[in-house]
Amino acid sequence: MHIAGRVDVNDLPKICPLLSRKTVPRYGENQTRVVEVGGVRFGGERPVVIAGPCAVESREQTLEIARAVKGSGADMLRGGAYKPRTSPHDFQGLGLEGLKILREASLETGLPVVSEVMDTRLVEQVAEYVDMLQIGSRNMQNYPLLIEAGRSGKPVLLKRGMAASLCEWLGAAEYIANEGNLEIVLCERGIKAYSNGEYARFSLDLNVIPAAQAETFLPVIVDPSHATGVSTMVEGASRAAIEFGAHGLIIEVASDRLDAAKPRCDAAQAITPRTLRRIIHFVESRPAHAPEAIHVAHWPLPAAV
Amino acid sequence: MHIAGRVDVNDLPKICPLLSRKTVPRYGENQTRVVEVGGVRFGGERPVVIAGPCAVESREQTLEIARAVKGSGADMLRGGAYKPRTSPHDFQGLGLEGLKILREASLETGLPVVSEVMDTRLVEQVAEYVDMLQIGSRNMQNYPLLIEAGRSGKPVLLKRGMAASLCEWLGAAEYIANEGNLEIVLCERGIKAYSNGEYARFSLDLNVIPAAQAETFLPVIVDPSHATGVSTMVEGASRAAIEFGAHGLIIEVASDRLDAAKPRCDAAQAITPRTLRRIIHFVESRPAHAPEAIHVAHWPLPAAV
Amino acid sequence: MHIAGRVDVNDLPKICPLLSRKTVPRYGENQTRVVEVGGVRFGGERPVVIAGPCAVESREQTLEIARAVKGSGADMLRGGAYKPRTSPHDFQGLGLEGLKILREASLETGLPVVSEVMDTRLVEQVAEYVDMLQIGSRNMQNYPLLIEAGRSGKPVLLKRGMAASLCEWLGAAEYIANEGNLEIVLCERGIKAYSNGEYARFSLDLNVIPAAQAETFLPVIVDPSHATGVSTMVEGASRAAIEFGAHGLIIEVASDRLDAAKPRCDAAQAITPRTLRRIIHFVESRPAHAPEAIHVAHWPLPAAV
Amino acid sequence: MHIAGRVDVNDLPKICPLLSRKTVPRYGENQTRVVEVGGVRFGGERPVVIAGPCAVESREQTLEIARAVKGSGADMLRGGAYKPRTSPHDFQGLGLEGLKILREASLETGLPVVSEVMDTRLVEQVAEYVDMLQIGSRNMQNYPLLIEAGRSGKPVLLKRGMAASLCEWLGAAEYIANEGNLEIVLCERGIKAYSNGEYARFSLDLNVIPAAQAETFLPVIVDPSHATGVSTMVEGASRAAIEFGAHGLIIEVASDRLDAAKPRCDAAQAITPRTLRRIIHFVESRPAHAPEAIHVAHWPLPAAV
Repeated sequence: MHIAGRVDVNDLPKICPLLSRKTVPRYGENQTRVVEVGGVRFGGERPVVIAGPCAVESREQTLEIARAVKGSGADMLRGGAYKPRTSPHDFQGLGLEGLKILREASLETGLPVVSEVMDTRLVEQVAEYVDMLQIGSRNMQNYPLLIEAGRSGKPVLLKRGMAASLCEWLGAAEYIANEGNLEIVLCERGIKAYSNGEYARFSLDLNVIPAAQAETFLPVIVDPSHATGVSTMVEGASRAAIEFGAHGLIIEVASDRLDAAKPRCDAAQAITPRTLRRIIHFVESRPAHAPEAIHVAHWPLPAAV
Repeated sequence: MHIAGRVDVNDLPKICPLLSRKTVPRYGENQTRVVEVGGVRFGGERPVVIAGPCAVESREQTLEIARAVKGSGADMLRGGAYKPRTSPHDFQGLGLEGLKILREASLETGLPVVSEVMDTRLVEQVAEYVDMLQIGSRNMQNYPLLIEAGRSGKPVLLKRGMAASLCEWLGAAEYIANEGNLEIVLCERGIKAYSNGEYARFSLDLNVIPAAQAETFLPVIVDPSHATGVSTMVEGASRAAIEFGAHGLIIEVASDRLDAAKPRCDAAQAITPRTLRRIIHFVESRPAHAPEAIHVAHWPLPAAV
Repeated sequence: MHIAGRVDVNDLPKICPLLSRKTVPRYGENQTRVVEVGGVRFGGERPVVIAGPCAVESREQTLEIARAVKGSGADMLRGGAYKPRTSPHDFQGLGLEGLKILREASLETGLPVVSEVMDTRLVEQVAEYVDMLQIGSRNMQNYPLLIEAGRSGKPVLLKRGMAASLCEWLGAAEYIANEGNLEIVLCERGIKAYSNGEYARFSLDLNVIPAAQAETFLPVIVDPSHATGVSTMVEGASRAAIEFGAHGLIIEVASDRLDAAKPRCDAAQAITPRTLRRIIHFVESRPAHAPEAIHVAHWPLPAAV
Repeated sequence: MHIAGRVDVNDLPKICPLLSRKTVPRYGENQTRVVEVGGVRFGGERPVVIAGPCAVESREQTLEIARAVKGSGADMLRGGAYKPRTSPHDFQGLGLEGLKILREASLETGLPVVSEVMDTRLVEQVAEYVDMLQIGSRNMQNYPLLIEAGRSGKPVLLKRGMAASLCEWLGAAEYIANEGNLEIVLCERGIKAYSNGEYARFSLDLNVIPAAQAETFLPVIVDPSHATGVSTMVEGASRAAIEFGAHGLIIEVASDRLDAAKPRCDAAQAITPRTLRRIIHFVESRPAHAPEAIHVAHWPLPAAV
């Protein structure tokens, strides 16, 4: 019984020769290739914390949250200008106006900004306003989009598809790398499982962090907001991700002051700036990685096992 | 404990008001809106059988299979000119040349042809050569592509994402409908489950057929090739799908004569023309739906339950 | 990266040497070993239809349904005397009294009866009253129970665990076989998947039918009631299962007359005797397997593929 | 479309009235009921670490590992005397002899011991030798076994089924509670997901920790060995579980000295005593919960969110 389309991690050198540790031995068994975005170093001495609103809904809301995020000690700003929504009748984001607001928020706070792009024809536009392009879960296998993101010259945050295998995820990253762009950061954001919807939105899959780190030298961060879908779980999920070796976090934050005006998407998973501060305090109070050894802390240390 | 992003089938009137039976009562509880493609009627008196090669690999191979498919009694031709592949280093399809070969095969056999489009910028090009656009599983939530397909004026075959919920699938269809295009056919093609890879490629999810038919008036067909990934399972899966109420099948076929030259993708799931003939014989030997009642045969018949 | 506990179908000769086609070649590539239960032949010329109430709730209800089931043409009676329930505060079945009622219904209708046993200490008791022991999904890996069922001398209906792999399922069957009892019938009953609860109770996994039949000579039947959890899906699921090569069906039936008194478990998935008659008519109107070739109809026929 | 058997967390007060925070308000929104086992306090000031061999294979191996586990600072000893195995032809454990060895190891080290029981008829025997009974994943819904464990008077470690919902898990615990035994500790051990086998054995589901803690006052620990199946992942998974609020860990350990003699089950997931020491150092270096507030650290703290 031969099954079509079956691949496993042993096929990665063929699927992603530009990204596999086996075919690119210069990073050894556990070094991470640092991706720099406006001075922020993914895979560097400290985990990176990206935070911001789910969607850019207004200038006031975005600046308010950006300042709070900055005040909490975050490294980077996030916010959606183009929003992929299950229904065309839902709020689709402010588009170009949203990008301009993000740019302003970035300038004011000094935080580099990442935002999602969904359309090949808008890659250039989005790249003009942001420091890092995000490819969302729904588009992880939108290959023309990956190719355009690769050609943009911008660093790319590649979210894992909602049910992507590790091979599919790294194969998607290879489309970006194949355009000569290695400035790629992977992002685990929860997977589909039978348990979805009972007590969490998705199933946070932390096992994939060390597995990805064993197969490739790209940094891997975690989105605890989508992976849980429950605001009171975000802090625990963040700490867990860092302890399991994640190189950073991307977190949705709502405003304290604007709470009367509920966010127009995913309100239930946004945390307050106060919780964000606690998370960042946790991240910062851990010992830094030694600068001469930018490596994955807990993976794989054969001598110690 | 509130979970973000949680929707269920009761939300469908809001997610897809153009496609839900509740908001579009003219099709009643069980009538299907017929989608016509070059004389072929999806949702009509008889299930439709689409067949052809996985990928267009050469003129010779495609014409050979197209003639065999025609000889087997199929209603429509399929074939990939642009192929979404896990790795950028895999064969990506012949592109425009492939489309021209498909057009030739269609003209020679008289069979309308469906082919996948992955890039918004190529929708117009693909639409010029084919009778029906296919949106593949990986792009089910590529909303700009759905919008362009909606605007193309062509009927659209919308495959279900590999882990899409019914709400996500119908929400994706709504993006097409929202552009004024109701010529949409849904296609179940197997879902991700823990069992994938042990004895089949995906998990054929036939339960979704009556469920989709209960919620919307769009025709629903099944792809038994990808849903099993095993050529010897395709015939059984095809028969099962038809008995569970599918309005048609889309099947990958390999050539008898060219078997020395293995197809360049998914060889293990392609059947021979001889098996295709048996499947079509099975489909044709069943009683037709009465013309005055284009309906879903086994779903929901409250009187009979 | 070595993963503990990883097995695949190539390990089946080691996991279940008493049941694997590779280690027990006498049934060839596609013959099924017939299991006889009171004259009913699983794996014989015709698919077997078992039907009856979810639970034995009273003498009146059970006799009523048993007569209707007999009148519909079913081959065997089912009914739960000991019911495994998610909560200890739910109705747990009538126990010994239920077994006596089942025996009476069996005697009156002439139908052999199958009922679930959950407790090693009750195997002897249940075996005294029924013709076939059922091991339920929750107990598929209750090895002491499998061993006792194997020793009972009774045929055993072994349901697949809700998330069992094929290897785990056949490994469980091997525990029965290892006690010298090969009178085993496998039963697929739906698996856990991300889609559960949205439009169906479980995900009916028909791909496992030909896969199981390729690996072992045991008959495989399907439970469309639990696999869908929706009464209006049961007929379609039954037809689909038969067309995909199932050797039979086990179906939950409710009473027409007693509908005021709702069944105390799983009412939403029980069909009426009228629907059962249509299913049985469908099964009987198909051509019988030739008696000299007790085989799996649609699986694997290498010559024809 | 009504689906049979559908429950959600809102049904927990009916499913498990003895264990739900809603029906047993005395533990408030976040206090945990401490379960004491030979002086070890689950749900107390510090997370509990249980460690030991997968299976008791010999007196020498078990005493060797028990001493190493004690030396590493673990709180409790684990070891399998009766082993549930996929095939009856695999090593099934030493049985009573294994229990005696565990007792000896417990006496020598002063560590209380937990071991699995699979058979109702052996509950009394196992309870005689161990301090805590373990119900394994395969038997989470073996209700007669749960009832006997409840009656044994011993504390019970209840592993989550491989694909159990939270409702099913707490429903199983209720069977124990219903016998008057509230000395129950829950244990998450990885769930079945589409990704199993690609890079890990199961999918470690940490989201369920705060969810379980929100619904019940029982302590919840994590088994990082089975949840990953990869020895080099165990340390990261352990740290992550603790940071996500787990009340403890249960870890499989292999011997340094005896490594020539590979363990007879699940070798690939066992860690060395040295790695265990690092994990325990991590656990001990965290601030203790304040004694007056035995609570779940990161869940749900509405004031802080």
